[in-house]
Amino acid sequence: MNSKWFFSLLILSTLISVGAHFFTHSEPLKFATACLSLLFWAALLGKATENVAHYAGERLGGFLNATFGNAAELIIAIFLVQEGLFEMVKASITGSIIGNLLLVLGLSVFFGGLKYKIQRFNSMLARHNASLMLLSVIALFIPAAFMKGLEKSEVHTLSLVISSLLILGYFLWLLFSMITHKEELGEGIDGLPADEKKEIQRESGETPASGVVAAAEEESPDWSKGISLLLLIVSTAFVALQSEWLVGSVEAVAHTLGWSELFVGGFLIAIIGNAAEHSAAIFLAMKNRIGAAVEIAIGSSLQVALFVAPVLVFVSWLFGQPMDFVFTGYELAAIAVAAFIAKSISQDGSTNWFEGVLLLLVYIILGTAFFMV
Amino acid sequence: MNSKWFFSLLILSTLISVGAHFFTHSEPLKFATACLSLLFWAALLGKATENVAHYAGERLGGFLNATFGNAAELIIAIFLVQEGLFEMVKASITGSIIGNLLLVLGLSVFFGGLKYKIQRFNSMLARHNASLMLLSVIALFIPAAFMKGLEKSEVHTLSLVISSLLILGYFLWLLFSMITHKEELGEGIDGLPADEKKEIQRESGETPASGVVAAAEEESPDWSKGISLLLLIVSTAFVALQSEWLVGSVEAVAHTLGWSELFVGGFLIAIIGNAAEHSAAIFLAMKNRIGAAVEIAIGSSLQVALFVAPVLVFVSWLFGQPMDFVFTGYELAAIAVAAFIAKSISQDGSTNWFEGVLLLLVYIILGTAFFMV
Amino acid sequence: MNSKWFFSLLILSTLISVGAHFFTHSEPLKFATACLSLLFWAALLGKATENVAHYAGERLGGFLNATFGNAAELIIAIFLVQEGLFEMVKASITGSIIGNLLLVLGLSVFFGGLKYKIQRFNSMLARHNASLMLLSVIALFIPAAFMKGLEKSEVHTLSLVISSLLILGYFLWLLFSMITHKEELGEGIDGLPADEKKEIQRESGETPASGVVAAAEEESPDWSKGISLLLLIVSTAFVALQSEWLVGSVEAVAHTLGWSELFVGGFLIAIIGNAAEHSAAIFLAMKNRIGAAVEIAIGSSLQVALFVAPVLVFVSWLFGQPMDFVFTGYELAAIAVAAFIAKSISQDGSTNWFEGVLLLLVYIILGTAFFMV
Repeated sequence: MNSKWFFSLLILSTLISVGAHFFTHSEPLKFATACLSLLFWAALLGKATENVAHYAGERLGGFLNATFGNAAELIIAIFLVQEGLFEMVKASITGSIIGNLLLVLGLSVFFGGLKYKIQRFNSMLARHNASLMLLSVIALFIPAAFMKGLEKSEVHTLSLVISSLLILGYFLWLLFSMITHKEELGEGIDGLPADEKKEIQRESGETPASGVVAAAEEESPDWSKGISLLLLIVSTAFVALQSEWLVGSVEAVAHTLGWSELFVGGFLIAIIGNAAEHSAAIFLAMKNRIGAAVEIAIGSSLQVALFVAPVLVFVSWLFGQPMDFVFTGYELAAIAVAAFIAKSISQDGSTNWFEGVLLLLVYIILGTAFFMV
Repeated sequence: MNSKWFFSLLILSTLISVGAHFFTHSEPLKFATACLSLLFWAALLGKATENVAHYAGERLGGFLNATFGNAAELIIAIFLVQEGLFEMVKASITGSIIGNLLLVLGLSVFFGGLKYKIQRFNSMLARHNASLMLLSVIALFIPAAFMKGLEKSEVHTLSLVISSLLILGYFLWLLFSMITHKEELGEGIDGLPADEKKEIQRESGETPASGVVAAAEEESPDWSKGISLLLLIVSTAFVALQSEWLVGSVEAVAHTLGWSELFVGGFLIAIIGNAAEHSAAIFLAMKNRIGAAVEIAIGSSLQVALFVAPVLVFVSWLFGQPMDFVFTGYELAAIAVAAFIAKSISQDGSTNWFEGVLLLLVYIILGTAFFMV
Repeated sequence: MNSKWFFSLLILSTLISVGAHFFTHSEPLKFATACLSLLFWAALLGKATENVAHYAGERLGGFLNATFGNAAELIIAIFLVQEGLFEMVKASITGSIIGNLLLVLGLSVFFGGLKYKIQRFNSMLARHNASLMLLSVIALFIPAAFMKGLEKSEVHTLSLVISSLLILGYFLWLLFSMITHKEELGEGIDGLPADEKKEIQRESGETPASGVVAAAEEESPDWSKGISLLLLIVSTAFVALQSEWLVGSVEAVAHTLGWSELFVGGFLIAIIGNAAEHSAAIFLAMKNRIGAAVEIAIGSSLQVALFVAPVLVFVSWLFGQPMDFVFTGYELAAIAVAAFIAKSISQDGSTNWFEGVLLLLVYIILGTAFFMV
């Protein structure tokens, strides 16, 4: 699309959404206009992420994107914690984790796989992601498993201890992946040993001259470093704003349709709230930057499990209404299932369209079960 | 064995079994004669599969063998569904999955491993098999996990949705493995990169001149393409027939001995019903065609979980007696345990005798537990 | 430390501990003196193991160390079985398994990782260890899963069958790893293919001249083969003796402090009882012999699960007080969690400091939960 037209439509749709939000009372109208505006902002966010990733490298770019994407969710969740809506908070944490692991990763792998036969990313990163996912599952599973034998105050103490350990683990992971072992975890395919690079070129079915690696590199960025970063921040802010408006009206719409809170919190809100991650990850996967796409999808769900969720436990203490770390059996089953299939598919550091299908099938199975419960 | 002698004994044993089936009422006699005849037909099936695999390549050959092997089970199961014997159907589905994953794969890996120090097969195929096994476990686990919160009609709807998704997944897997990524999933060791081939030769402990790869290739087929295929079909049909007779009399014998239905359905019937897969897979493994053996064992259990079981759910609707997809805790435990150990052992694409021992130990543990329950 | 000084302090501290044990009644004094003496003996054991490993190779050395380390635990457990204290026995088996998999392995990987950026060991061994761990978890899980449907006498029969199978599996594993596939499982990095060795040298960040491989080899042993072996046996005996004294007094101390038996048996006794493994494994990891450290940590926990625990079931029959193989839900959860995270981290045959952190975090989470229950 022509750049001038794009920005015109972006601004126009935003103005309409703002108007609908403040000057009408029709929830469906608010929903539709926020949705339209969100589409343009998510597209801009995807483009901005791609540009920032160009300057910052895939991993830092992916991390920035995941962080900006989760900032919105953290803010919304803090409001929910303040009002004591713990069940909704846990449902949306669950939904965010499985939405990223299954839907975002599934769509990225599927659409990337339609265009490129086999896509590869740093397998050491993949294995560490898998181990971190397992830590998350263990941390969520232990309080539920031991709850029966504990008093309520002990459950809260255990929740605080586990939350502290997860936050500690998350910061040590940042130290490890950004500083001490930055090189080994690599910058996408640039971080791969030379022979793996060659293999990628060979398998991509293209001639070496227009090989995948070359293709991924030769593209010049649209904007300067500063403007890219500015657009990343601005578009993240607007995606967050529009997401919140969307969430506000979607709940009213869902109630009218008679859908369960577990489904609304765990699926509908998570899908819309992760629109930023969706668009950016799929966008990058289709440019054969699957490493950055994986970093956004898996990195974002790890951030939710290892940082956002534990921080919410501490925030709940500040508000004087302590929230525990005990998830329902349904939520634990969903998170465990999502973590295991994502681990199984990503741990070899290579993906194809069928692996995307597998992730999406599991997402639909879980979605159906949550819709019915 | 001399070919003429073999066919004489095959025909003779078949005639005796036919006679015993139609003209006597002694169950033990029926059982013994069907067993003897089955041995010869299974041997012929193994030989025919090997020949077809020679022409069709290991993966297609393995797929054909798995399909022909499961056709018999599907037919028997449809009769059971028609009579509403859902528990028996689910027990035999369970038995077929764990029988293939543990007993068939275990024996193949063990006997193949006694002859060859390390046997290798395409590791990309192994990883995809593992992910598909995980999908099967998830699909069986979710209805049981969510059942408590659902009404009976909702369980049936969820069962239908999951069945549709599994069949869709199975056909996309065929599309993926037979068409879009045929080359990557490789034709056994021929599909391995050159350096892996060399490694196999080196590790086989033989001189390069009489190396494993050469050994596997130089053997010329016994029959032409057409005759091989004809013998595959005929021997499958007779194995199915004899299996059914065996199953019929074995139930009577088992009842006399006072064995539980779960053990008869899940172990005895499954072992006999999979005689075809057994003989073919072990035969191939001992010829160092472990790739085809794995394709038969794991492929067959995947076919049961992703295709046979869901089809039976739909068939039950046609009969007006809907069967759900909820397995008992024992069955789920057995399938999950079998899938995890098979995944752990097969996912590196290499096997040895001790890995066969591990699979067989788990099979005996499960068999003992099912026998006692 | 100067060798003469070391042996003087060793003998002195031992004499003091002996004196405190036989001539005083103060439990804290017994505890403190046994602890001090244990430190020196554990250090000697580590040094002796390192020397034996030099002569015997990493795997046999590691096996010897694990066996000598577990001998003490087996002897203590037999006394407990004789007195019918089955809960305490199972708690200490659990504690020993998770202590080795999480604490010993975690500390080794962490401290080794602080010194060397990436440490590698034979990945075929790692995968087999992972499969054996899975077998252990399955063997412990099945009796608990099927217990509800079984009578008490059937549970005991099932326990005996599973115990026999595990001991059979353990001896076949020794046959496999020490005889038929000794070379493939390799002697640490010497067993790696040439290109992996180069990679290790490259990644170690040292110049090839003083490379890791060279560094690990060039160190000459302190003692002759015979003296090393003698010191190994003597120091193991004293570590066992001091451990037992420590355990005796620690229980009294713990009771005074009001700690639960599950925590004392599963954590406190296990930590102290495994002091030998701790010191030896960390010592070796910091000398970049991570292969031997892994063999001690994982090998020791496998030995407990596959050999010590089943032998205790048989011993209980000899005493006429049969012990079953049914562990509590908490114990199963802890063992499964430990096995999965250790598997996830070790199966690629490479470790770094952050993977040590992950293991330790899980250990602290489990410890907190057990402390509260």
